[in-house]
Amino acid sequence: MKVLVTGAAGFLGRRLIRALLARGELTGPAGKPVAIERIDAFDVVPLEGMNDSRVRPVTGDIADPAQIEKLIDADTLAVFHLAAIVSGQAEQEFELGMRINFDATRMLFERIRALGTQARFVMTSSVAVFGGAMPATVPDTQVWSPQSSYGTQKALSDLMLADYSRRGYIDGRSLRMPTVVVRPGKPNRAASSFASGIIREPINGVDAVCPVAPDTILWLMSPDRAIDNLLHGFELPKEKLTQGRVINMPGLSVSVQDMLASLRRIAGDEVARRVKMERDPAIERIVNSWPGNFSADYARSLGFVFDADFDSVVHAFIRDNAAPAA
Amino acid sequence: MKVLVTGAAGFLGRRLIRALLARGELTGPAGKPVAIERIDAFDVVPLEGMNDSRVRPVTGDIADPAQIEKLIDADTLAVFHLAAIVSGQAEQEFELGMRINFDATRMLFERIRALGTQARFVMTSSVAVFGGAMPATVPDTQVWSPQSSYGTQKALSDLMLADYSRRGYIDGRSLRMPTVVVRPGKPNRAASSFASGIIREPINGVDAVCPVAPDTILWLMSPDRAIDNLLHGFELPKEKLTQGRVINMPGLSVSVQDMLASLRRIAGDEVARRVKMERDPAIERIVNSWPGNFSADYARSLGFVFDADFDSVVHAFIRDNAAPAA
Repeated sequence: MKVLVTGAAGFLGRRLIRALLARGELTGPAGKPVAIERIDAFDVVPLEGMNDSRVRPVTGDIADPAQIEKLIDADTLAVFHLAAIVSGQAEQEFELGMRINFDATRMLFERIRALGTQARFVMTSSVAVFGGAMPATVPDTQVWSPQSSYGTQKALSDLMLADYSRRGYIDGRSLRMPTVVVRPGKPNRAASSFASGIIREPINGVDAVCPVAPDTILWLMSPDRAIDNLLHGFELPKEKLTQGRVINMPGLSVSVQDMLASLRRIAGDEVARRVKMERDPAIERIVNSWPGNFSADYARSLGFVFDADFDSVVHAFIRDNAAPAA
Repeated sequence: MKVLVTGAAGFLGRRLIRALLARGELTGPAGKPVAIERIDAFDVVPLEGMNDSRVRPVTGDIADPAQIEKLIDADTLAVFHLAAIVSGQAEQEFELGMRINFDATRMLFERIRALGTQARFVMTSSVAVFGGAMPATVPDTQVWSPQSSYGTQKALSDLMLADYSRRGYIDGRSLRMPTVVVRPGKPNRAASSFASGIIREPINGVDAVCPVAPDTILWLMSPDRAIDNLLHGFELPKEKLTQGRVINMPGLSVSVQDMLASLRRIAGDEVARRVKMERDPAIERIVNSWPGNFSADYARSLGFVFDADFDSVVHAFIRDNAAPAA
């Protein structure tokens, strides 16, 4: 099987590729495991340090039709589409966000439709599609009401994935992910970037700013569970997807103050004191429009997984952070 | 004020233009009535029989950027976008539906954004954005889950209108219309075409086929109320749109058998017997995916109107049908 991963140089992309290589096989439409012969690892920046003969790194512009034609051919029967412009940047650079977060996704669907392969296609959506007045626990039946261009673009892509799947052009699954915490590396322009920063930076001896109120409730998933769910989302037989192709993932509902209490409990007072509370209205406006808890009944019934508590999320970061970069 | 109406040669477009001409003015962003000096009446087919110096008929391709540039200029501060490929045809001709129902709408928004006019923009959406398991009365918070490409394309356009409005590029209002009944003229390729046909054809002495079960519940609005609501949707101050720009319209929830009972009551047994019951699974699948009743609380609070009962809808058709074509 030939697999395409977009956003391959991102932190989830790298982890996904490592997980695919470690498994060596994937169960697709045939219903039994098939060996992964090749992974086309696409990103706008080069993927480095992934030394495996099955991985072919490719760089380019994901919204260029000629690039897409080269990326996906009749043998590409599995796609994990993770490439995206993050929420803060998509809000500031509207045209770029539309082009990468929506137009490129549509072009990928169109390419598969033109080939007639009905490739299985997993992508990540976001809780940023929700907004406005909502119950404390958001049901699967909650209307989409994005309060950001990022959320809008994810919802547009979700609608297209669902219709292309309904028509039999692709076999799509869009996983509406919680904020993935703790991300390694540097802060990015996602409005949710602080949610990793307030754990990662202090543990690495660096001060961090928390731009939202302590009682802000976040909906989180660890990187480990995110990868588990991407693979599970791929391998689910399509017959099981009785309530649609766009699936609110389960997650962990936790307040910022409880996150900081975990940090203090695990890493100590001195580390926890590196977090400064400085509210930023622009970030608060976006983050507070995202719900802090979801029923995710459909996802639970399909066997998607979630983290038991935030302490285990911090422990997992400390474990990964101490390991040599891969 | 210069007004653009797309889909101007369609039956709602013609009625809307006549209503605009009769009023002679519209209340826009300035908050007070402004005289309508010109109506650009755009359609793919020529608009005929509209003899008023204020009306300028234009024909062309709504998805052609050069055409859109000509249609909308810095003086175009009011747009009623009614042009669409109907549901049945959009299901059969996927690319055409995407191009007209979504890409063209996006281009109109982009044109206004490029001009920087923040033009007020009213368009019609559809209950076809809903589908799957739903409560008998659908709340405003119901998730979108289109079961047709038409519904998908309307939902895509709704999301774009909301984001362009939020960003201040346009001042958009999308009215999610019930099925408009009774349409004059000939059957079209909308899956809902029969809902007018089973009243119109018998009254005009022609046999009609009803392709759905008698207990099918439809969500309806008369042409008079549709025009009232388009104008009301335009004139609402944007400050009142506190729950978003995409508004489920109120309507009349009625079963097919009750519609036929109205026909019999008003037009007599002989007329009612011209309706033959012949179920068509392709039409039933689409129509049954549409809800038959909505709370429409937000629209009601904003003053949108609806029909009191189906008898008055039939009477209005008989009145219009007897009048000389305008």
